[in-house]
Amino acid sequence: MAQPLTDYQRLCIHTMTTKPLSLSEAIEEYTRAGVSGITVWRHHFEEMGAKEAGKMLDDSGLEVVSLCRGGFFPARSAQGREAARDENRRIIDEAAAIGAPLIVLVCGAVPGIPLDEARRQISDGIADVLPHAAAAEVKLSIEALHPMYADERSAINTLEQANNVVSTLRSPWLGVTVDVYHCWWDPMLKSEIARAGNRIFSFHVCDWRTPTRDILNDRGMMGEGCIDLRSIRGWVEDAGFRGPIEVEIFSDEFWQWDQRALIEQIKRAWLVHV
Amino acid sequence: MAQPLTDYQRLCIHTMTTKPLSLSEAIEEYTRAGVSGITVWRHHFEEMGAKEAGKMLDDSGLEVVSLCRGGFFPARSAQGREAARDENRRIIDEAAAIGAPLIVLVCGAVPGIPLDEARRQISDGIADVLPHAAAAEVKLSIEALHPMYADERSAINTLEQANNVVSTLRSPWLGVTVDVYHCWWDPMLKSEIARAGNRIFSFHVCDWRTPTRDILNDRGMMGEGCIDLRSIRGWVEDAGFRGPIEVEIFSDEFWQWDQRALIEQIKRAWLVHV
Repeated sequence: MAQPLTDYQRLCIHTMTTKPLSLSEAIEEYTRAGVSGITVWRHHFEEMGAKEAGKMLDDSGLEVVSLCRGGFFPARSAQGREAARDENRRIIDEAAAIGAPLIVLVCGAVPGIPLDEARRQISDGIADVLPHAAAAEVKLSIEALHPMYADERSAINTLEQANNVVSTLRSPWLGVTVDVYHCWWDPMLKSEIARAGNRIFSFHVCDWRTPTRDILNDRGMMGEGCIDLRSIRGWVEDAGFRGPIEVEIFSDEFWQWDQRALIEQIKRAWLVHV
Repeated sequence: MAQPLTDYQRLCIHTMTTKPLSLSEAIEEYTRAGVSGITVWRHHFEEMGAKEAGKMLDDSGLEVVSLCRGGFFPARSAQGREAARDENRRIIDEAAAIGAPLIVLVCGAVPGIPLDEARRQISDGIADVLPHAAAAEVKLSIEALHPMYADERSAINTLEQANNVVSTLRSPWLGVTVDVYHCWWDPMLKSEIARAGNRIFSFHVCDWRTPTRDILNDRGMMGEGCIDLRSIRGWVEDAGFRGPIEVEIFSDEFWQWDQRALIEQIKRAWLVHV
């Protein structure tokens, strides 16, 4: 079992966690609170553009941990699949522009496309954009999504599947993201984390609320749910991961809070439960 | 791929699908509609008792396919676990009384009990009540529940896990239920259905709606979602299963319909999509 964290050196927050804040407000509040890292969601710099966002982030002194998100490779037509690949190449350029070394891939799924076909399209799509990622020196990280998102968000639903894609494509620019929300239930989790080893590129935390009131936006604060966060962090660290730990909470409830108070709540939960 | 069904000989409906109907109303409507089988949920005979329900069902001519549901074995205390086993022995007696040859097990989970510990308690609990099931000649069938129910409904979340319990306990009275809603996303589904073989004791259908508006009660009618029902039925039949196919839909939407109209809708969807 991992030891409790005693400072905020590895604390990274997703801008989506504090969705009501603009990018500049998020930077200001995270810095003020002593948060070390920031993972930036694309819509947070949609208006200003990646170049401007990159300058702002560079000036901030925050560590830019990753860009969320690329992926969504499956489509009904070859044209649709090519458009998705073009979009991912643009996202890679954006990541380079904002100084993010990593893009999280939500791989995609389309109701009506059989899952095995979607999985092939995902693997082919990633293979196709990997050279662009390598040229830009931006890593791609496959995030297995909870099976409840297999209809329209991702056909990659277990860490085992994500590891399989990584094993097949064999690129130093391709790895996996372990997100406790998506995989805490998986009986293979511990062994697949060990198998992933140094291909664990990032690690996301939150908690699973009981009851879960909304299938998308009711994630819990660390400690208020049933996920054994400390054990999972231990497995990830045993596998060699020592990078930032990213707090990614989509919550209609927390988005209504004063966001400064929310950040302080995250810091308290961080020391006790992560 | 399986061929379309052309009659209602294998059509069974869960009383929970037509929740607003009393047991006698359900019997009347199913019979009127030419439905062949009925799976009875316990609360539908809570007031009258199992003996009275058994008489009513026996008189109806409907095939009693199964009783829903037993299980919920994990508990924080030894006393709680023993109470759960006693309750399951009572449920076995009820099944015998209503003429149900099978009990579906929703195995249970408790927030805060680690999943691996819950899984041990489930296996131990089933082992403990199996002799009672054998004596009553009632089969027990483990239903793997969708991972989104791993917090408080079941720590058995894949068919592989259910098959593992069956392999370990090795009793002719223990098998698995394949419910498309819970396992459609699973990359191992086809191979685990083949592995289950003649231990597939029952087969449940409905569909997965996009978007899913409620984590419990928003299941779709067959054909209105993304589950490849025909393929999964083919795998189940290739494994040797030729029993009733059970329509189990929890839906706040459909429970508001006229229930006779709902049964007719089920019959239409049955011929086209199952």
